Amino acid sequence: MQDNLSQTFSALADPTRRAMLARLAKGEANVSDLAEPFLKDMSLPAITKHLKVLEKAGLITKSKEAQYRPCKLNGEALKTASDWMEQYRVFWEESFDRLDEYLKSVTAKKKAKGKKHGRKK
Amino acid sequence: MQDNLSQTFSALADPTRRAMLARLAKGEANVSDLAEPFLKDMSLPAITKHLKVLEKAGLITKSKEAQYRPCKLNGEALKTASDWMEQYRVFWEESFDRLDEYLKSVTAKKKAKGKKHGRKK
Repeated sequence: MQDNLSQTFSALADPTRRAMLARLAKGEANVSDLAEPFLKDMSLPAITKHLKVLEKAGLITKSKEAQYRPCKLNGEALKTASDWMEQYRVFWEESFDRLDEYLKSVTAKKKAKGKKHGRKK
Repeated sequence: MQDNLSQTFSALADPTRRAMLARLAKGEANVSDLAEPFLKDMSLPAITKHLKVLEKAGLITKSKEAQYRPCKLNGEALKTASDWMEQYRVFWEESFDRLDEYLKSVTAKKKAKGKKHGRKK
């Protein structure tokens, strides 16, 4: 059995499922609304399977109250995944710092070159 | 073929691979260093397969310079994934706001109850 974090990342590793989350970010929607944009490319069982993966990972919840059972996005599973990523922030900030340093050195070299050429005139 | 974001999330959807990233967060390491903690539970080919998944997803890079080819963590792929998550921040903050409101209302009710009991004395 997958641990929760693996289940969340696994559920996010699919463009259809991410598109479904993007739709739900705009507001609650029932299964037929969610299925509609994908029906030309895949079968309804394939679509409901994607929804089940999202539901099992806790990324969406199906309301049990209303008769048409709308789905809604559940942010907490995403928060857990985002918190996990946060511990690595230093690594991408470092790489951007390196890029920044590189760009600064390139600009400095260009300026120096510009001055040199200026002197020649 | 998987898109980049799906490849990143898919690579992160495994506790062994996340443990390897956690090891690399402490500093560069070669394959045998990375393999060592897992050798009691899995075969070396299984371990190198995990490393290949991480490498293919751009989460780690193998240095081509040194003879022992150390691996290092590459933060940029994680940044892309983290940026994607960031757009959903409002959803987990909302759910924490709701929890906060709930806790405040519970505390308020308890206080009110306490006062009521106080009056009875």
